[in-house]
Amino acid sequence: MVIATQWVYRFRDGNAQMRDLLGGKGANLAEMTRIGLPVPPGFTITTQACVAFLEGGRQFPEGLWDEVLEGLRDIEQQMGRRFGDARDPLLVSVRSGAKFSMPGMMDTILNLGLNDQTVEGLAARTGDQRFAFDCYRRLIQMFGKVVLDIDAELFEDVIDEHKRELGIQHDHEIPAEHLQRMVEEFKAIVERKAGRSFPQDCHEQLRLAIIAVFDSWNNRRAIDYRNAHGIPHNLGTAVNVQAMVFGNMGPDSATGVAFTRNPSTGEKGIFGEYLINAQGEDVVAGIRTPQPIHAMRDDPLLRPAYEQLLEVAERLERHYRDMQDLEFTVEHGKLYMLQARTGKRTGRAAVKIAVDMVREGLIEPREAVQRVSPDQVEQLLHPMIDLNWKGEPLARGLPASPGAAYGKVVFDADEAKAWAERGEPVILVRLETSPDDFHGMLAAQAVLTARGGMTSHAAVVARGIGKPAVVGCSALEVDYERQEFRVDSTVVRKGDFITVDGSTGAVMLGQIPTVAPAVGGDLSVLLSWADEIRRLGVRANADTPEDAAKARELGAEGIGLCRTEHMFFQGDRITAMREMILAQTVEERRAALAKLEPMQREDFIGIFKAMAGFPVTIRTLDPPLHEFLPRSEEEIEAVARDLGVSPDLIRAKVEALHEANPMLGHRGCRLGITAPEITEMQARAIFSAALHCAAEGIEVHPEIMIPLVADVQELRRQREVIDRVARELFAEAGREIPYSVGTMIELPRAALTADEIAQEAEFFSFGTNDLTQTTFGLSRDDSGRFLPFYIEQGIFPADPFQTLDRKGVGRLIEIARDGGRSTRPDLKLGICGEHGGDPKSVWFCHGAGLDYVSASPYRVPVARLAAAQAALGEREGDV
Amino acid sequence: MVIATQWVYRFRDGNAQMRDLLGGKGANLAEMTRIGLPVPPGFTITTQACVAFLEGGRQFPEGLWDEVLEGLRDIEQQMGRRFGDARDPLLVSVRSGAKFSMPGMMDTILNLGLNDQTVEGLAARTGDQRFAFDCYRRLIQMFGKVVLDIDAELFEDVIDEHKRELGIQHDHEIPAEHLQRMVEEFKAIVERKAGRSFPQDCHEQLRLAIIAVFDSWNNRRAIDYRNAHGIPHNLGTAVNVQAMVFGNMGPDSATGVAFTRNPSTGEKGIFGEYLINAQGEDVVAGIRTPQPIHAMRDDPLLRPAYEQLLEVAERLERHYRDMQDLEFTVEHGKLYMLQARTGKRTGRAAVKIAVDMVREGLIEPREAVQRVSPDQVEQLLHPMIDLNWKGEPLARGLPASPGAAYGKVVFDADEAKAWAERGEPVILVRLETSPDDFHGMLAAQAVLTARGGMTSHAAVVARGIGKPAVVGCSALEVDYERQEFRVDSTVVRKGDFITVDGSTGAVMLGQIPTVAPAVGGDLSVLLSWADEIRRLGVRANADTPEDAAKARELGAEGIGLCRTEHMFFQGDRITAMREMILAQTVEERRAALAKLEPMQREDFIGIFKAMAGFPVTIRTLDPPLHEFLPRSEEEIEAVARDLGVSPDLIRAKVEALHEANPMLGHRGCRLGITAPEITEMQARAIFSAALHCAAEGIEVHPEIMIPLVADVQELRRQREVIDRVARELFAEAGREIPYSVGTMIELPRAALTADEIAQEAEFFSFGTNDLTQTTFGLSRDDSGRFLPFYIEQGIFPADPFQTLDRKGVGRLIEIARDGGRSTRPDLKLGICGEHGGDPKSVWFCHGAGLDYVSASPYRVPVARLAAAQAALGEREGDV
Repeated sequence: MVIATQWVYRFRDGNAQMRDLLGGKGANLAEMTRIGLPVPPGFTITTQACVAFLEGGRQFPEGLWDEVLEGLRDIEQQMGRRFGDARDPLLVSVRSGAKFSMPGMMDTILNLGLNDQTVEGLAARTGDQRFAFDCYRRLIQMFGKVVLDIDAELFEDVIDEHKRELGIQHDHEIPAEHLQRMVEEFKAIVERKAGRSFPQDCHEQLRLAIIAVFDSWNNRRAIDYRNAHGIPHNLGTAVNVQAMVFGNMGPDSATGVAFTRNPSTGEKGIFGEYLINAQGEDVVAGIRTPQPIHAMRDDPLLRPAYEQLLEVAERLERHYRDMQDLEFTVEHGKLYMLQARTGKRTGRAAVKIAVDMVREGLIEPREAVQRVSPDQVEQLLHPMIDLNWKGEPLARGLPASPGAAYGKVVFDADEAKAWAERGEPVILVRLETSPDDFHGMLAAQAVLTARGGMTSHAAVVARGIGKPAVVGCSALEVDYERQEFRVDSTVVRKGDFITVDGSTGAVMLGQIPTVAPAVGGDLSVLLSWADEIRRLGVRANADTPEDAAKARELGAEGIGLCRTEHMFFQGDRITAMREMILAQTVEERRAALAKLEPMQREDFIGIFKAMAGFPVTIRTLDPPLHEFLPRSEEEIEAVARDLGVSPDLIRAKVEALHEANPMLGHRGCRLGITAPEITEMQARAIFSAALHCAAEGIEVHPEIMIPLVADVQELRRQREVIDRVARELFAEAGREIPYSVGTMIELPRAALTADEIAQEAEFFSFGTNDLTQTTFGLSRDDSGRFLPFYIEQGIFPADPFQTLDRKGVGRLIEIARDGGRSTRPDLKLGICGEHGGDPKSVWFCHGAGLDYVSASPYRVPVARLAAAQAALGEREGDV
Repeated sequence: MVIATQWVYRFRDGNAQMRDLLGGKGANLAEMTRIGLPVPPGFTITTQACVAFLEGGRQFPEGLWDEVLEGLRDIEQQMGRRFGDARDPLLVSVRSGAKFSMPGMMDTILNLGLNDQTVEGLAARTGDQRFAFDCYRRLIQMFGKVVLDIDAELFEDVIDEHKRELGIQHDHEIPAEHLQRMVEEFKAIVERKAGRSFPQDCHEQLRLAIIAVFDSWNNRRAIDYRNAHGIPHNLGTAVNVQAMVFGNMGPDSATGVAFTRNPSTGEKGIFGEYLINAQGEDVVAGIRTPQPIHAMRDDPLLRPAYEQLLEVAERLERHYRDMQDLEFTVEHGKLYMLQARTGKRTGRAAVKIAVDMVREGLIEPREAVQRVSPDQVEQLLHPMIDLNWKGEPLARGLPASPGAAYGKVVFDADEAKAWAERGEPVILVRLETSPDDFHGMLAAQAVLTARGGMTSHAAVVARGIGKPAVVGCSALEVDYERQEFRVDSTVVRKGDFITVDGSTGAVMLGQIPTVAPAVGGDLSVLLSWADEIRRLGVRANADTPEDAAKARELGAEGIGLCRTEHMFFQGDRITAMREMILAQTVEERRAALAKLEPMQREDFIGIFKAMAGFPVTIRTLDPPLHEFLPRSEEEIEAVARDLGVSPDLIRAKVEALHEANPMLGHRGCRLGITAPEITEMQARAIFSAALHCAAEGIEVHPEIMIPLVADVQELRRQREVIDRVARELFAEAGREIPYSVGTMIELPRAALTADEIAQEAEFFSFGTNDLTQTTFGLSRDDSGRFLPFYIEQGIFPADPFQTLDRKGVGRLIEIARDGGRSTRPDLKLGICGEHGGDPKSVWFCHGAGLDYVSASPYRVPVARLAAAQAALGEREGDV
């Protein structure tokens, strides 16, 4: 027994759930039709029909054509016109529509049903010869290109010739007689190139258009797109055939777009614009200025349609329970809905709409949490370039620290500070920054460097102190001597205004208006819902009491990474640090460390207080020591004077500490192992600070983290130092502080030997910045010459420093998790690389069963939301 | 029913197989006794007795003491003396001896059985009061220290006082009366420090000595040693009690050491020396000059003992089927064997002995293969410092390229070449070398640098061209201006002779004699046996036709790594290379590449010819381009003149190509992807060379290897270029060459995603140098400041750049193997890092199921032997 397959569904017979069969567009049109909205009638040819066609030797499966004709008759009935009727022809569009949106596929052919006869009928009915022939020439052009595979340029050349002849610039200025000639010329092109004439049989037009859509499923671009996005090749595409409607039929016709709420602010109420007597493409072309949507209310011819539109908008919002982006056409006063889809919106609007809709009872809090993207939340946390600004940047660098700011260019940290102190906003511009520039960075509105990558000094410090920064902007030729920089022929001098956008990497001339961050009450509400949903803890990377306080304010539940070295870069400290590095004996080193200890202790007290009751993960000294030494001859002379040593001594030390690959050099625990007195000093500062706080009744949870461990022996030795100092200080104070010792997992070998390392570690924190660098053998600072090319070319799907690489780095994390937990089932696992603030990476961390992520303070809200979404995803089986 | 345990075995009741019960030493003494050799009688207390003692609350287990007394009676009977007999006392020694040799444990107490009475008996019997009291004071001293835990310095202080009083320097000059006084003073020290008197009861002496040996199993050093070497803690140690014999009883007594064959040359026949009327320690002290062993033949008093010794030597060799190292004593004409163990030997001797013994029918070829260590083979392949030289090196650096050589110091490559051309041997001394020094390195006998690590330019090039090199010798202060270097206060000027030992890293003043490599016929024979046994293929890393020919000569079965970039460092080539790098457009780059192509082609022709019939793996360009550019201002000026460009252009390029971490930078396939014309040129050179050879009837198997792949997409793109060039050239030539394309696995991510990479790779070659660097996050060039400390402190068990790290790097190799073969079961797997020539790493590669290892030509014989030993190990279940 053969069960007849149904190949064609009228819009009114389908619904939103039928995406597999009807494709995304077909299901959407069906859904709107189903709930009674005024959609131009039409039908969808199923994806199964496409598959049957392609698998059956490019033959229509049995019954398909009959069902198409039946569908067409249904449209004719509803529209009261007939397809191919020479006096008043029905025109239809044909559009592809797969289950997943696929830009690589054929899109649309409009105006099917026009031929040498029917075009006259259309002209007569509309009283607009020009319109009719314009429709016709477009049909031939689209049909020629899409169905007959004729080079589009051939048609464009003809149009250009006509415009040259007429001395005009725009297509819409071409008069009717020229369009008529053009139709003849287009037909000649078809004849010549396709070896057949443009079909005058309207049904033949339709049949060929349907075949073209079917075939487009297997064109090169579509196949590549499916390969790249992991879409199966056997799904097929649906084909939508729909009656054409026109908004340019007179003063009682119009076309427009509208949002059901304001997409910038989120305010409730319809928002949009329309053009009277116009077609959709006229709105897009921007030649006539559209009117705000509310003006329709005051136009008696359009008022009924407007009122109907309000109803439709309300209806669609209730139906889809989200803000909608609508396209409509009014033909002779009758409203037609052509599209309704979830509307794009700013971060601010997204948050407000989600929270409002919960208040309105439209959605549940967990749905609200899913409605706002982490990127939208991030937008809210930094000043942005005003969306209305439409200019070209002067240059682009790496977006190292988000946010936008303008100020006057200065090239020196002292000058930045001086100008800032007298109230002038400044942008510090340097070839690259060094610790000596820190006060200038603090004083500046933003930082711009010509060199360095995403983990350069400028980038790391700027992110840490929350200043916008663009780094590695290689187009900049900085000339300190002339106090200016050039980009090609543009010269920017000290004192000139520039604007820097650290979110995009753009550098602009002058003062570009920025939009202040709006962390309203709505965001707090939304994030509190997220907190109830998420399983993953969210901590912050914070190095100072101020950062710690900010992190708490933004919802961090502890510090996941406190980089102690950043404490050594300021003021007196770098001097003591340099004394330590230049020490010739262990005693001299101890003396210098003794100066640093009280400073560290004070910092830790501040941080513990800001994080009272929450854990604080403190990483021992990590960077190679040469980072603390001066570089230029001038700086060396100055430091030598300060320290009262000979410049030669400093030069010799700089030379001795020089490394071919500092990233893989004498740093991390390798420092603490060769000079245990450094670790000892840091442990003493941590525990004495903790004891001080405990004595004041503050709850402290220090977690001491050893960096760059490759083997358990390294951790064991550093742990011995820490445990010994703890015992000594606790005995002295007569009080014990609960603490734990753990390690960064930031080298492949640490991940691979995690079972051994877990013998000595109470927690692992994945340092995914360095783990990515070592897993890929890729220096982030040096990747600028090829990584952008790799991403552009699709060699890497994404920047692995932005989004955690699941196949490589992710696999190491899983190996480390399994190894670590096999030894110590209650091992705490976190991530403290910059991926901790990246939503996709947060999803991975959730799925991988980590306990927490740690992100820079301003990304904490982003991580809270992403963690909640990951938890919801898991519940719904999507991870 | 209780089965009585036997706690004590007389030597004549045991054998060599009873190591578990009797320990190594006990089993050895038993074996010698068992086969009828004249061993002083004795017995062994079992390891089980020790365990029973320690587990039973430090009580002798039941029956032990009775069995000891019984054993003692057996010794008395055989020696004809009684223990504790005041007139003619039997003396015994007590020695520990566990299953595995353990330096951390108590070793020996001699002369047990002496007390205030028996010492007089001994004096009377030997007629030597001094001897008797010297024995006695030694007993008290050893007993005090080992059994009673008295600080050894207390005794030493007394001896020093006596020597001061007497105005003498050596212990053996102390007269009898002083030794008598010393005995009294030693007894007083025991009384005072141990709170008990030195036991006059000889049986009590023995009992306490046995307990001390038992207890030494659990001393700190022994426990640490077992932890470090993975020896179980529950084995216990045996105790050997043996009659003392004395070689200093007159002219018919003697003591000596002998080898059954010459340990330097391997020649058959006894070889050794002896002292008449002396004790073993006199030989060691070196005060009297011993006589060659053959002189015993001419001494009528010793001749019978000599003849017996010859018989014993023959016997032992036949028994143990290996060359033996013997210790013997002649007491009143009677020969006693005190020790027989496998003798240490030079590489030369090892090879000759092994091959001779096969010829003599003593052993099978497969045993011969196991008898020679890979290190011994390596010794043979480089000139060595004469073993007789006994001096102190001036300084030490890293042993970057093996072999020793002397020459006159020069500081400049041109000078090196000029001097060498007029016949003077030179050593090129540089802070570090660059490509511009290549001709100087070629001309020099050896290279010495103050900076750089094991993969620095100097090290890599020197290994490649087989020149000895010591690099990173940081004690060197090189002063180019004065044309001298200093080490502390020593100044070495241009033209002074120095000697450099690249096998040990030593730098010596003057001309130290060296021994030339002796690759005799024996080694070839041995290696041909090895070849029949091994499963693992052995290839060579070779970059030139000369290297390739040398590699074949040394038995390589193909080239596993041909580094194409080394071809660009010489003469005209570096100029064309620099033009390529400085090119401003793709066209300019292509023009420069076109100059390089014929040179590469010629090299490949030479290599293919040298390797006719064997596979040649050619790696495409790998190093970052800045390595080809000049560094110093002078060099920049010179190159600018040569190329006819402005120095500023070069400076700008040097600056632009500067990288923070070049190891992780723009290199490897990243070059070929951003500039595919480079890969294209190389592919063209390879295939046109291959076609040229094929036309001449030479069989060629090019394998093209893409370096630094992190993702399959990189390999796919490079492969596309290569396959396209191959198609084009094959079509042109009307001939096809079978070739394959594969990749280095040298990044953790490549190993982790090997299943994907194997889609495009026909082979994997593990680049374990870089894989070790990235897995550990450890730059080999920068590791000098902490890696030696790590190894010394036992943080790392070995230098991971020498011996492959199994836990981390090895696991990645296994992951890659499994992943790769899951996709492509016939995937060929090799290793081409420097580990390819390291015996332990070869074992790993065998066990991991790799197909081949590739090593530098001079390590090919080492790898052949190690591979055979691995195969034998596997057969015997040892891997």
